[in-house]
Amino acid sequence: MAGAPHAGGGLEVVYGRRPVAEARRGRRQVHRVWTRDELDDGELTRLAGSPDHQGVVAEVDPYPYADPGSLVGADDALVLALDGVQDPRNLGAICRSAEAAGASGVVIPTRRSAAITAAACKASAGAVEHLPVARVPNLERWLAGAKDDGAWVYGADAAAPERYTDADLSGRVVLVLGGEGKGLRRLVSERCDLLVSIPLGGRVGSLNVSAAATILAFEVVRQRGA
Amino acid sequence: MAGAPHAGGGLEVVYGRRPVAEARRGRRQVHRVWTRDELDDGELTRLAGSPDHQGVVAEVDPYPYADPGSLVGADDALVLALDGVQDPRNLGAICRSAEAAGASGVVIPTRRSAAITAAACKASAGAVEHLPVARVPNLERWLAGAKDDGAWVYGADAAAPERYTDADLSGRVVLVLGGEGKGLRRLVSERCDLLVSIPLGGRVGSLNVSAAATILAFEVVRQRGA
Repeated sequence: MAGAPHAGGGLEVVYGRRPVAEARRGRRQVHRVWTRDELDDGELTRLAGSPDHQGVVAEVDPYPYADPGSLVGADDALVLALDGVQDPRNLGAICRSAEAAGASGVVIPTRRSAAITAAACKASAGAVEHLPVARVPNLERWLAGAKDDGAWVYGADAAAPERYTDADLSGRVVLVLGGEGKGLRRLVSERCDLLVSIPLGGRVGSLNVSAAATILAFEVVRQRGA
Repeated sequence: MAGAPHAGGGLEVVYGRRPVAEARRGRRQVHRVWTRDELDDGELTRLAGSPDHQGVVAEVDPYPYADPGSLVGADDALVLALDGVQDPRNLGAICRSAEAAGASGVVIPTRRSAAITAAACKASAGAVEHLPVARVPNLERWLAGAKDDGAWVYGADAAAPERYTDADLSGRVVLVLGGEGKGLRRLVSERCDLLVSIPLGGRVGSLNVSAAATILAFEVVRQRGA
């Protein structure tokens, strides 16, 4: 295997046309890019760890997680806090919507959560290269700190009597969403100033967590008339 | 291979816990269900055509597409028309959100579009078993007919000056979305009564098509106060 292409020690890969393009104009260094000019699809798939590379794989610095203390500083800060989203595609999709909504950042727990892997970068269409994403060892404690800093914390809970559209989402806002199919853990739920629900029709009666996050983030945008 | 499990001629499969559960309480007959009690993971993966089966694969009747003429009958009909969404996961995600929004149905073109495959069923969490999904040979013509039936047709266009939140989304509404990264084709765009945009912040400047569909569908719900 001497000479075979591989990502160097400590480095990561991103794959896909838009993720690689956004990495190049983002915050971390791109060391090498492999395309179909240099490698065949099988080798690109092996490097990417996925067949979804669209013919482009890059070797990049590790993902630059943000300082969790920095996210609610602005008067109109909007942060999405994810209580155990497990699927990197959902995490990436949430980050893409959050970035498009102009959010200040996303907070995820260090443990029992998907991280910003190459699959999450791909699902975010590269949005994670621009959006601050912070990891925290204890989400309840981070929420308490955000409240001390003047943020209002709204938890998404399908059983809450208050509709999300009736909540006042001005000022510093943190939106908290539970993991896929699980909802918020009790200790996280108790940290919220208000629990809000998205009214659902239909028979299945549930939304994908990234759909719920998108609806809530764009309701903030709507209320602010941005 | 005699005796090896396989889906019978003309039948389809669905896989995953929720998709199979929703198929059982939905509109099409479920002929057989295979689980890890009968088969190992490799055999389930072969039957499902995907490793995402969660240990459950079912043999079902072909997907029962809806009559496209039936979808805008109700005074408050809400239909999502998809102009060439190619990824079955996006199609499934849109159907899940549409069903949760209480939509009347989804319309897709027969050609150059993802269909309701097992992957779409999985991404919809089984919502397609309850939501009417119709296929039409010519989307422009279907939109013209919907307008004749009293529907207002709103096309999602990132460049439109009118914000989606400023549009009056009461009455019979059709929301038209373009394929991934492509937007609406010109002939489809010209059929719309109004083009609307979702204001975007951030640097990537685009939404996933299922995120856009979700935002628009839930704005209809919000305006109707349902």
